[in-house]
Amino acid sequence: MMKSIILIVLDGLGDRPGSDLQNRTPLQAAFRPNLNWLASHGINGIMHPISPGIRCGSDTSHMSLLGYDPKVYYPGRGPFEALGLGMDIRPGDLAFRANFATNRDGVIVDRRAGRENKGNEELADAISLDMGEYSFRVKSGVEHRAALVVSGPDLSDMIGDSDPHREGLPPEKIRPTDPSGDRTAEVMNAYLEEARRILSDHRVNKERVKNGRLPGNELLVRSAGKVPAIPSFTEKNRMKGACVVGSPWLKGLCRLLRMDVFDVPGATGTVGSNYRGKIEKAVDLTSSHDFVLVNIKATDVAGHDGNYPLKRDVIEDIDRAMEPLKSIGDHAVICVTGDHSTPCSFKDHSGDPVPIVFYTDGVMNDGVHLFDELSSASGSLRITSYNVMDILMQLAGRSDKFGS
Amino acid sequence: MMKSIILIVLDGLGDRPGSDLQNRTPLQAAFRPNLNWLASHGINGIMHPISPGIRCGSDTSHMSLLGYDPKVYYPGRGPFEALGLGMDIRPGDLAFRANFATNRDGVIVDRRAGRENKGNEELADAISLDMGEYSFRVKSGVEHRAALVVSGPDLSDMIGDSDPHREGLPPEKIRPTDPSGDRTAEVMNAYLEEARRILSDHRVNKERVKNGRLPGNELLVRSAGKVPAIPSFTEKNRMKGACVVGSPWLKGLCRLLRMDVFDVPGATGTVGSNYRGKIEKAVDLTSSHDFVLVNIKATDVAGHDGNYPLKRDVIEDIDRAMEPLKSIGDHAVICVTGDHSTPCSFKDHSGDPVPIVFYTDGVMNDGVHLFDELSSASGSLRITSYNVMDILMQLAGRSDKFGS
Repeated sequence: MMKSIILIVLDGLGDRPGSDLQNRTPLQAAFRPNLNWLASHGINGIMHPISPGIRCGSDTSHMSLLGYDPKVYYPGRGPFEALGLGMDIRPGDLAFRANFATNRDGVIVDRRAGRENKGNEELADAISLDMGEYSFRVKSGVEHRAALVVSGPDLSDMIGDSDPHREGLPPEKIRPTDPSGDRTAEVMNAYLEEARRILSDHRVNKERVKNGRLPGNELLVRSAGKVPAIPSFTEKNRMKGACVVGSPWLKGLCRLLRMDVFDVPGATGTVGSNYRGKIEKAVDLTSSHDFVLVNIKATDVAGHDGNYPLKRDVIEDIDRAMEPLKSIGDHAVICVTGDHSTPCSFKDHSGDPVPIVFYTDGVMNDGVHLFDELSSASGSLRITSYNVMDILMQLAGRSDKFGS
Repeated sequence: MMKSIILIVLDGLGDRPGSDLQNRTPLQAAFRPNLNWLASHGINGIMHPISPGIRCGSDTSHMSLLGYDPKVYYPGRGPFEALGLGMDIRPGDLAFRANFATNRDGVIVDRRAGRENKGNEELADAISLDMGEYSFRVKSGVEHRAALVVSGPDLSDMIGDSDPHREGLPPEKIRPTDPSGDRTAEVMNAYLEEARRILSDHRVNKERVKNGRLPGNELLVRSAGKVPAIPSFTEKNRMKGACVVGSPWLKGLCRLLRMDVFDVPGATGTVGSNYRGKIEKAVDLTSSHDFVLVNIKATDVAGHDGNYPLKRDVIEDIDRAMEPLKSIGDHAVICVTGDHSTPCSFKDHSGDPVPIVFYTDGVMNDGVHLFDELSSASGSLRITSYNVMDILMQLAGRSDKFGS
């Protein structure tokens, strides 16, 4: 019998001991009966995102958890910036991180146009346009930030930035870094010139100047990344995939992989999200889908804040929401882990491994009874993120045999 | 001093807890004083065949245990089918899985010719022939099954099947899947036409038709695999290798690697084999050979049967046969493991890891005192099958230094 799979990623879960918590990690300090139940009935260990000591992003780690080697498929920062703003990207598209900047007489005087955001949506719309075979879409993000997605034939990411990365210099002409980028560089320079013309004449910017504020009259682009020809989740893993995730970039990644994306009322993508609703939704989806990814972002948010007690409390809330997972081992395989560690003492992603547990009816418990950075390390597994899908598939009875 | 090596593979050893055995695995439930003695004096751990979560065959796993990366050297199903029927294959040969099928007026009406076996040996002999530079050897297997080995210059496995994989269709012309397969496809189509002619006229088939049974007048071939240029065991590992194994395919693999193949009276390749004889033979061979592979198939047989008590009993019998291993640590390194798990609850190979122990005089015991899926997991090693040969070589004092 083939089982369904639920992979629950507690973002930035791993941590280091904190004096705020009597030298325990937030996970160790949390009252977590349900996580401990899974540990007591499952296979435990530590998981290195990508490989031991690699300090990775949520993007690369999730790709590899989903069975895609990021060394092969990671398209770079540009496409993920676009995904993060909720833009759709498709294989063959070229995407950039972008800034609205201030250009005075051909020189960039503020790379961030005073970090102004008001009106940027209008500016972005104004420079979202088609030119010949190419279409350009710009979306405004936080403050001065934006993303640009270019669609059209034979785009190449072998090109440089228009962002001079310093003030007091003119915007760079986009230059190919390889002859294969020649045509794309031309296309981009023509577009950026047109964008400059439109932005300079735009009502929003004229008003800003009138009010003595900095106009966003230059779109500086950087980190070109071409979206690779990436097989769909179903093509790659021969499963019908769903996700219950909050972060826009992760929804975008799942859409790119043609997984079904589900929203849950009250799910906010941060602390205080509807954890129970997300997990119940995932449990429901096991009847219609073979694989469900759940990401809960709140643990990472608390880690970036350096807030030990908050991270502990978030874990307690999530643990309470996990109650329904204990009764579905007859038809589902459950894995709980993190995508990386975000130690409160470091306030950023570290390269520490994260605890992992696999549970379904009929597996052998490896003598571990608690789920945390220390206890899980006495379990049987020392794996990388790229092994997770293979283990899930085989526990679900879904693997092909290699050989005979 | 260089020591000899005995690698004992208990086929399909790993398992999961079974209610038939009070929630223990067959290995945990077995009285196994000798395996536990090895664990108590050795280095223990768990071994992932190929890599974590991969559900592998005995063929790919044994190749990697013997130091051959199956991603490089695995020739596919065809050659192993031929090896399994006791046929010799050589680098450059092309081998196929084959069926005797029934062709009526150019259409396959039964892909298995009524699963008839009687007379197939004669049919196979009749279509084992030379055509120009090429020689074709067919051997009959179980029921309608057979294997075909082609020898000759510049053969390619970039070709399709003649098997239409459905009834009611004519046999396929063999088509190249790449221009490099053009010549081989021609050679194969000429052969299959000749085989069809010979089979149709054959006495065995005329008699079947007379008796209202289905003639085996068409050889359907599939899963073409070219035997790679594979270094001999001695070339690869700089050791004189021997094997004491029952399964025909594994004897064939060892012959392909030019290891010496030894038979033991009473060794049957299944439950009730002469385990003691095999292990005593391996111990004897340490005086003439550097490396001895022993495979005991009975554990896998019991796992495929889903028979917990039988698998436990088989392990107890094997354990008793292991007595002589305890007194040879002065001149031999011993490793006991499985090639994969065959959980009784799954009745097939799973992707679970297997316990492993290395023992020779002078190594440090890592605190493990029992040999089983759980106890071994508290040992020091987390390795893959491809690490085993390196560890054996170094414990035997046979490794070259990498660097200085």
